[in-house]
Amino acid sequence: MRNVRLTLAYVGTRFAGWQVQPERPTVQGVLEERLSRLLQERVSVAAAGRTDAGVHALGQVANFSTERDLPLAGLRRGLNSRLPEEIRLMEASEAAPAFHARSDARSKEYRYRMTRAEVVSPFEAPFVTPIHGVLDVTAMREAAGCLLGRHDFTSFCPANCEQDNRVRTVTLARLEENGDEIVFTVRAGGFLRHMVRTIVGTLVAVGRGGLRPDDLGAILQARDRRAAGPCAPARGLTLMKVFYEGEET
Amino acid sequence: MRNVRLTLAYVGTRFAGWQVQPERPTVQGVLEERLSRLLQERVSVAAAGRTDAGVHALGQVANFSTERDLPLAGLRRGLNSRLPEEIRLMEASEAAPAFHARSDARSKEYRYRMTRAEVVSPFEAPFVTPIHGVLDVTAMREAAGCLLGRHDFTSFCPANCEQDNRVRTVTLARLEENGDEIVFTVRAGGFLRHMVRTIVGTLVAVGRGGLRPDDLGAILQARDRRAAGPCAPARGLTLMKVFYEGEET
Repeated sequence: MRNVRLTLAYVGTRFAGWQVQPERPTVQGVLEERLSRLLQERVSVAAAGRTDAGVHALGQVANFSTERDLPLAGLRRGLNSRLPEEIRLMEASEAAPAFHARSDARSKEYRYRMTRAEVVSPFEAPFVTPIHGVLDVTAMREAAGCLLGRHDFTSFCPANCEQDNRVRTVTLARLEENGDEIVFTVRAGGFLRHMVRTIVGTLVAVGRGGLRPDDLGAILQARDRRAAGPCAPARGLTLMKVFYEGEET
Repeated sequence: MRNVRLTLAYVGTRFAGWQVQPERPTVQGVLEERLSRLLQERVSVAAAGRTDAGVHALGQVANFSTERDLPLAGLRRGLNSRLPEEIRLMEASEAAPAFHARSDARSKEYRYRMTRAEVVSPFEAPFVTPIHGVLDVTAMREAAGCLLGRHDFTSFCPANCEQDNRVRTVTLARLEENGDEIVFTVRAGGFLRHMVRTIVGTLVAVGRGGLRPDDLGAILQARDRRAAGPCAPARGLTLMKVFYEGEET
C-alpha cells in the first residue's frame, strides 16, 4: 500500500468547508470523488485542518492510501485537470506508511486578512474582510501577545465544541499593518473550531475600544464563550502551512 | 446636467466584456442597470476601454450624465451595494461638462501576466496565463522594444477589425520577470481589438524560438494578421490605468 502526501491550495468561497457533508459541495468531497475516478478505486483523504465553510487554504496537507502505482507527476497533472480551478494539488510526494496528515501535524499556521480600504479591489475581495471605523492597532497587537503560550481556549470556541480538551499552545500571534491591511498570523499545536476567527473578533473588539488588551487574560480564565468577542467572517481566513516533525519550520 | 467620472475595477472572468450585448452578462450592462435603478433614471455609461470577454480592469474610467444630485459618497456606497462583488466603483468624481472617458483618453496602460509555475495557485489563476516550456525572455524583451513608437498595427488585429486607421503610438513596452511570472506592460495612445493579446502571443512565439526579435519589424511592415503570432488568452490581461490631459502620468 502506498501512502501519498498532498499539499493543497483552495479558494473556499463556494465550499461548505473541508469535511464531507451530504448534499453540499465540500473540498474533501470533490477531491475524493475526482481522485477515486482518476485511480479507479475508492479513495479516502485525511487533511491536517478541517477548514470551515468559506475558509481558504494555501498549504493544506492531506494524505491517502492507494494500491495504484501512478507516478506522482501523472497524479498531479491528472488530478488538477479533473479538479475545479478553485482547488489545486500543489505538490504530491510519497509518505512513510505510518504518516497521517492530521495526527502527525505538530503545528499549523493560519493568516487572517482585514482591510480598512473604503472600497476593496474585486481581485482581493474574496480573501479579505472589510473593517470600518477607527482601530487602535497597538492595542490589538498587545492583546494578540497575551495569547502566546499554553492556555485553555474554551472561551474561543462554540459552547457545543466537540473537543473536551481545550488546552492549546500558541507559538506565534503576530499582527502586522501593510497599507490598508491588518494581517494576523497565528501558529499553534492545534486549533479548536472557530478559534482563529473568534480570536480575530476579540482583537477587533480591543481595536475598537470595547475591550482592553489586558482583558485577554480574564477572557481566557473565564472559559466561557460569552466572554470573548464575535466570530469574524470566514473570507479573511487562510490555512497557510502545516508543520511536521523533522521538517524545517 | 452633471457629468460624473467613475474609476472601476472588475474581474472579467464571467462577463462577455465591457460592451452591452443582448442576452449576455456584460460589465456595461450590469453597471447601467444598477446605476439606473439607483438613480431612478435611464443612465448610459461610456468607458475608456471596451475590454473583451474575460479581460479584467483595475483602473477602467467611465462617465455618465445625470439630472440627480446624489452626493458622490452616496453614489459609491449605493452602487457598490447593488453591484456584484466582481465589479467595484473605486472612485467617483465630478467631471467637466465636456469630459468624455473614451474620446478624451490620452493613453491607456495594460498589463499581461504569464506564469511558468508548474501549478498555479487558485488565488492567482483567474488573472494569469500558464505558459510551459523553455522561454528566451531576453529575446522577448528585445522584441517588445521593437514595438515602441508609431506603427501601423494591422498585423496585430483581426482582419475584420472595425477601425480603418490602425496606426497607434506605443510609449511603453516593458517585459519583466518576477519569480515564475513574466509580466508585460504596454502603454499606447489607443489599442486595436485584440492588439495587446496578439502582441503577447507574438512575444511568446519569439520566446519559444519560432520567431526572432528582429522579425517584429517585418511583421509590422506586413500589415497582415497572418504575419503575427496567436492571440493570447484573455485571463492574463488587465486594463491598469487610463491617462488624461493634465493628469499625472
